[in-house]
Amino acid sequence: MYIIGEKINGMFKKVNQAIKERNAEFIKDLAIQQLEAGADALDVNVGPESVNPLEDIKWLIKTIREVTNAPLAIDTTKPDIMEEGIKLAGEGSFINSTHADNEKLDVYIPMAKKYNAKLIALTISKHGVPQDTVGKMELVTNIVSKCLEYEYDLTNLYIDPVILPVNVAQQNAVAVLEVIQQIKIVSDPPPKTLLGLSNVSQGTQFRSLIDRTYVVLAIHSGLDSAILNPLDKDLVDAIITAELLLGKQLYCDSFLEAYKKRK
Amino acid sequence: MYIIGEKINGMFKKVNQAIKERNAEFIKDLAIQQLEAGADALDVNVGPESVNPLEDIKWLIKTIREVTNAPLAIDTTKPDIMEEGIKLAGEGSFINSTHADNEKLDVYIPMAKKYNAKLIALTISKHGVPQDTVGKMELVTNIVSKCLEYEYDLTNLYIDPVILPVNVAQQNAVAVLEVIQQIKIVSDPPPKTLLGLSNVSQGTQFRSLIDRTYVVLAIHSGLDSAILNPLDKDLVDAIITAELLLGKQLYCDSFLEAYKKRK
Repeated sequence: MYIIGEKINGMFKKVNQAIKERNAEFIKDLAIQQLEAGADALDVNVGPESVNPLEDIKWLIKTIREVTNAPLAIDTTKPDIMEEGIKLAGEGSFINSTHADNEKLDVYIPMAKKYNAKLIALTISKHGVPQDTVGKMELVTNIVSKCLEYEYDLTNLYIDPVILPVNVAQQNAVAVLEVIQQIKIVSDPPPKTLLGLSNVSQGTQFRSLIDRTYVVLAIHSGLDSAILNPLDKDLVDAIITAELLLGKQLYCDSFLEAYKKRK
Repeated sequence: MYIIGEKINGMFKKVNQAIKERNAEFIKDLAIQQLEAGADALDVNVGPESVNPLEDIKWLIKTIREVTNAPLAIDTTKPDIMEEGIKLAGEGSFINSTHADNEKLDVYIPMAKKYNAKLIALTISKHGVPQDTVGKMELVTNIVSKCLEYEYDLTNLYIDPVILPVNVAQQNAVAVLEVIQQIKIVSDPPPKTLLGLSNVSQGTQFRSLIDRTYVVLAIHSGLDSAILNPLDKDLVDAIITAELLLGKQLYCDSFLEAYKKRK
């Protein structure tokens, strides 16, 4: 599975402080730690407290680029900041994210095409987050139609069916698994699927247990990628082992290490 | 999921010793420990070193019956010992197990009917263990046909598609998941599915990790029950959490404890 590390996000106190203080070593270290733990790409988010988000994200991207060329997921709701970020991050990076409304898709799909970027699209519209399979699939259909209209390569589209915390929306967790399966038959080749995993356990007492159990279920449903905490070793071990047991990685006695080293 | 505790088995050194020494307290304690950890039923196997298996299994069953009326899975390859064991264990217990050959089914299906017992049937024949989905499903079909012939209630039939160690038969692990799904459409109502779980990790370096990851995948495929080690807390927690996330248990903040207490 394609893992996008979630740790470089200003909503985390220490990251927020590092951004304010321009503590480059802290950010570079966090980038390397996540990649060594199994991440393929890194999410970059200045956080809600940023006073100058454009300058902050440019500093973050430049700082990370001093240690790695791994794809970055530019995580902002502001189109102008997104465009600057994507330009700076380079080809193969992710626009994270667009909603499923036409007015958003009309901005972000052309942007993704222009910069040869991947696009993360959430099944959220101005009417809210549909919690059932049918409601989510309606938005999936709209996202895919718009991409076809713009001749955007669907294999660069990552649809996120929006997992909600299981303690407030238990049936949504079941619907998300169904949607992951159904997206695979929407087109040929199909779009990819992605989850912002840690949301499933928000507010519960057993976060790591719930995260790692849910990701195994989602991988079995066909999940392609997730934004998650790669420093949670139990979580990454569960992902590697699920892929092994589904025949997606060849067995060897040291399969956990082998997976991380292949990157 | 219906959990059959695997620990009362003479292949474990301490259990073998307890049987030899008629150490009833050890056996009773092991029964209670497993039930408190989440087991619904208990496997009972005298082990390969037993000199007098009939006397040993009778002693084991009587000893366990002093502390619990939970169903027992009488685990032997000898039909005469099976019959004595099932009689003593009482209604609702399990015949563990029959192979898929007619000459075995013609013995064990009538026995299961006579004593109102559940029947565990393995997809193994005198030709061996088929490792692919088609080969396993051929044996499933034969087991189900024979049960229909004898008018044996299919909801009391537990088909075990035989998981092999992933380090020697990786693709078999994938086939078993497919077979679990396919068994659900063999009849209406369908037979139940069961795994002897710990075999999947035999000889590997990460037994608990592989066991708990595989059982989550299998539950997602529709697995009804497994013979496993309920004293592996991480394993039982993974099972409970998978059922929660698939909407099979209602969420509450203390869902792990709530699951064990409902029994």
